[in-house]
Amino acid sequence: MSGTRAERAPDDLFLRIVAGEVPAEIVHADDLVVAFRDVNPQAPLHVLVIPRERYETVADLAAAAPATLARLVAVAQQIADAESGGEFRLVFNSGAGVGQSVFHVHGHVLGGRDFTWPPG
Amino acid sequence: MSGTRAERAPDDLFLRIVAGEVPAEIVHADDLVVAFRDVNPQAPLHVLVIPRERYETVADLAAAAPATLARLVAVAQQIADAESGGEFRLVFNSGAGVGQSVFHVHGHVLGGRDFTWPPG
Repeated sequence: MSGTRAERAPDDLFLRIVAGEVPAEIVHADDLVVAFRDVNPQAPLHVLVIPRERYETVADLAAAAPATLARLVAVAQQIADAESGGEFRLVFNSGAGVGQSVFHVHGHVLGGRDFTWPPG
Repeated sequence: MSGTRAERAPDDLFLRIVAGEVPAEIVHADDLVVAFRDVNPQAPLHVLVIPRERYETVADLAAAAPATLARLVAVAQQIADAESGGEFRLVFNSGAGVGQSVFHVHGHVLGGRDFTWPPG
C-alpha cells in the first residue's frame, strides 16, 4: 500500500474543494474535516466527509491521525442527525478496484432511504 | 442517539462470539478488536471487525475510543492485504433502517470481487 500523507497533489480534487478553488455545497467545515454533498448523489442524504489533509485511504488516515478519523465519524453522525433521523450508511472505498476514484480518503454518508444488501 | 458503552447485553451476539460462547471463524484477535467471517458472506472476502467492548454505533465508538476505531480500520486493511490484494470496501450501518441488525458496532470488510454503486 502506498499510504502516508502526501504533499498537495495537483490532481487532488478534494484539496481544491477545501481550498475553495472548486465549488461544492459545503455542509460542515472545522479545523480537521470538511463535508460536502456528492455531485452524483445516490440517496436523499449523500455527503462526503474528508480530512483537510490528504491521506490516500482510510487506513492511512487511521494510522496517521486517529483523532481526525474520529472527528470524521462524529461529523457524519451530526449530519445524519440533522438530515436523516440519525441513521446512515458509512462507506469507505479503498482502492480503484472497489470504486475509489479520488485518492483522498472520503467517507460516503448515505441516508434518507432504504438500502439493500450487499452494499454494491 | 443512545451511545455510550453498555454493560454486556444478553442479546449481544457479538459479545458471545468474543467470549467464545458462539462459534465463529475468527481471523484476527488482539487486545482491542476481533475479526471473524460473516456467516452470510457477500463477497469472497467478507469479514466483520468489532471492538471487544460494546458500543452501539460507529459514532459511539469514535467518541469513546478513537484508538480502538483506528485499530479496527488498521485490522481491516491487514485482512484485505492478506486476502484481497489490499483493496476493500468498508461499510458501517448505523441504525436498523439502513440495515444494522446487531447493535454492537461492526465494520463490514468486503473484497475480492467487483462492486457496484450505489452501495446498496
